[in-house]
Amino acid sequence: MSGIADTPEPPYVAVIFTSSRTPTDDGYAETAARMDELAALQPGYLGVEAVRATGDSGERSLGITVSYWATEEDARAWKRVVEHRSAQQAGRDRFYEEYTVRIANVARAYGFERSA
Amino acid sequence: MSGIADTPEPPYVAVIFTSSRTPTDDGYAETAARMDELAALQPGYLGVEAVRATGDSGERSLGITVSYWATEEDARAWKRVVEHRSAQQAGRDRFYEEYTVRIANVARAYGFERSA
Repeated sequence: MSGIADTPEPPYVAVIFTSSRTPTDDGYAETAARMDELAALQPGYLGVEAVRATGDSGERSLGITVSYWATEEDARAWKRVVEHRSAQQAGRDRFYEEYTVRIANVARAYGFERSA
Repeated sequence: MSGIADTPEPPYVAVIFTSSRTPTDDGYAETAARMDELAALQPGYLGVEAVRATGDSGERSLGITVSYWATEEDARAWKRVVEHRSAQQAGRDRFYEEYTVRIANVARAYGFERSA
């Protein structure tokens, strides 16, 4: 469990979600964990990678979450899931100062793993 | 300066670099900073977003860096820059336990920014 998603050979779709958090807690961790859980149940889900910097107090913490999907339609369907829509609204109401979502078609991939 | 890249309207290219670090320091921060600086000078560079989790000691820290490029050829040219190639080799020799690189064509993007 390295945190790197074990995706199949391309082509597939990446949704890159880059965000800057508000200082508010107010259910953020629970909502994020629940969305990870729910995303993994959706058709076409291939995996997720997520990192958030633990900012110094007062600093806005930057996060990148990349979710991987078999098709653009699968990614779009996840965006429309009712419980996810309500989390998106909470994101705009409370959790995020700013975010950008980019939908991208992965054309090539390669990697490296250190030998034991 | 939110840390979110100010990219133009799609289409453009995203290179998603997800990595798991070794515990080694040994010049990592300097190399990473130098590569950020050097990348920004390359033709077709549109921006970069980078987050690394500060892992508990002994834990392997996960990072995601997404660099944005005007074209796939621009991204490929950056991969071949001599000083970058030598940093890639240092990455395999010392800095990373594991990494995956995905080259993706950004088709759509949208965002949110909190009003002041």
